[in-house]
Amino acid sequence: MDLKMWMMEFRPAVEEELQRAWRELVPEQYDGLRTMMAYHLGWVGEGSGPEAQGKRIRPVLVLLAAAASGGDWRAALPAAAGVELLHNFSLIHDDIEDRSDLRRGRPTVWKKWGVPQAINTGDAMFSMAPLAVMRLQETVGEQAAFAGVKRLMQACMELTAGQYLDISYETERSLPMTAYWPMVQGKTAALLSACAELGAIAAQADAARRAAFARFGNALGLAFQILDDVLGIWGDAALTGKSAESDLVTGKKTLPVLLGLQQGGRFAQRWMTGVPVQPEEVVQLSTWLEEEGVLAATLAEADRYTREAQAFLQDAALPNEAGAALRQLADELLKRNR
Amino acid sequence: MDLKMWMMEFRPAVEEELQRAWRELVPEQYDGLRTMMAYHLGWVGEGSGPEAQGKRIRPVLVLLAAAASGGDWRAALPAAAGVELLHNFSLIHDDIEDRSDLRRGRPTVWKKWGVPQAINTGDAMFSMAPLAVMRLQETVGEQAAFAGVKRLMQACMELTAGQYLDISYETERSLPMTAYWPMVQGKTAALLSACAELGAIAAQADAARRAAFARFGNALGLAFQILDDVLGIWGDAALTGKSAESDLVTGKKTLPVLLGLQQGGRFAQRWMTGVPVQPEEVVQLSTWLEEEGVLAATLAEADRYTREAQAFLQDAALPNEAGAALRQLADELLKRNR
Repeated sequence: MDLKMWMMEFRPAVEEELQRAWRELVPEQYDGLRTMMAYHLGWVGEGSGPEAQGKRIRPVLVLLAAAASGGDWRAALPAAAGVELLHNFSLIHDDIEDRSDLRRGRPTVWKKWGVPQAINTGDAMFSMAPLAVMRLQETVGEQAAFAGVKRLMQACMELTAGQYLDISYETERSLPMTAYWPMVQGKTAALLSACAELGAIAAQADAARRAAFARFGNALGLAFQILDDVLGIWGDAALTGKSAESDLVTGKKTLPVLLGLQQGGRFAQRWMTGVPVQPEEVVQLSTWLEEEGVLAATLAEADRYTREAQAFLQDAALPNEAGAALRQLADELLKRNR
Repeated sequence: MDLKMWMMEFRPAVEEELQRAWRELVPEQYDGLRTMMAYHLGWVGEGSGPEAQGKRIRPVLVLLAAAASGGDWRAALPAAAGVELLHNFSLIHDDIEDRSDLRRGRPTVWKKWGVPQAINTGDAMFSMAPLAVMRLQETVGEQAAFAGVKRLMQACMELTAGQYLDISYETERSLPMTAYWPMVQGKTAALLSACAELGAIAAQADAARRAAFARFGNALGLAFQILDDVLGIWGDAALTGKSAESDLVTGKKTLPVLLGLQQGGRFAQRWMTGVPVQPEEVVQLSTWLEEEGVLAATLAEADRYTREAQAFLQDAALPNEAGAALRQLADELLKRNR
């Protein structure tokens, strides 16, 4: 069974588990709150459907890690739902913090219902996440449920710490390279690490396998984020048509930007003038970064973490079909649209 | 030992447990995040100190409930810290949602650091709350820790549901009486109920005592909120000097307002014109409410829940010193400044 088949099998089960949590945990009398949550999760409202739901990659990671630890993926569904709820709470709040109008092509929650309701809807989804994971008590037992909820909340602590740095960096023109890692560790790697480890926890794997999965998810997250940084400057959307969406225009402190500043070349000189980068400069600046070796250096970092992820996965996963699908998932995540 | 003595003994232990959670759970490298949290908790910054920290009533409730269940209050400290963190996360977000500039006499987090950092600092404190409670594993054991974290997150789910209604009601001119109860159940009673039950959980009390404490906390919360509604119209701050702070001016859907609308008298006629209430009308409107029997009816509701709380406490608490102090706490909470 290849990755696509697994994903087709997981998909309805994940939506069902998410809807169960939503139905059972949000009292019916608070109907408008339910609607805002269901809208954000892509179930109702204009434009609802698979597109609006996103790929549910984090649940897939949990479920494959469970099966690749020798467990029954169905027993890991509560953990899969929990990580997806946590991820979606963070998206609702990120959209407010970044003043983003659109999410997966639809108006964001704050745009539709205002900032106060959006903050609170995010909080409600946050509350659901640990409760959803705690249903592992029914499928696997209390010990796994306790370990699972603890792991999830630790990841969330890291997530907010990374987000704190990301917000802080917005007002800085220049930052040292060392500023990058704690930010992406929190913002991206922490939750992917928790996903992989939660799969192992739900499979009641031993401490060594749990740790190997955690390291795999962490390296995967770092590699994934670095490639996302590359796409933010050299991806199609960044270079053609929608140059305004280039990370160079939004001023994000991504790895290529920090490496470019460290180089001290033409890119750095232009950046340090303090004048906001205009869409029409995007091609020139990205060419300078390439000429100064920054694209190559960034890709080398991504490759380093990709290899790390592959090596950790070798330690973590059993040589079964799920393990093979997990390798395939990692390969696809780390190759998208390059 | 009377309530005051208990509170003096609890106070430093609660602050220490809160600081332990803060120190151990927020990584040191995210130093600015730590500072914003410490500021909100009243430990650092201009105006820090006991005044800025508030009374920490919820931890006191947890610890007395633990001792009145026959447990060691020190073992319940992780639960006490958890509820206080949860309460404070909700304050940080409430202040953004209500655009409040001041909290306990100091600038609010969003006012000092902006909305994005404030949303995220609230999220970070939210993440800490269940992790703090889970330290019950060390003091009491895993089973109690699991029950405790589940109870806390259920309360938080209710809290956000109540807050959803409160925000929704802001734009309604009139509401039926039935709209009141699910709002205050979530906003106030849910967390106080969880506090009392968490004390019993930390004392490893049986299901019957847990349930009795939960009911006590719930009734206490409802009575407390109704009296708060009374103070919002007839309290010193509402009637003299700061009439602009009267709930009549802010337009809050409190119990007296909804009862007044139900009466359909002069108060209701004025309210339903839709013209915002001016500070200079506050005395007249409150007099009409009194003449129409609304103050008496509101106080009767408060008395009903107060008696309920006392009866549930009779079932719940052991006849020891802590039980007596808990009765004293309930009496004081339900008599403040009348």
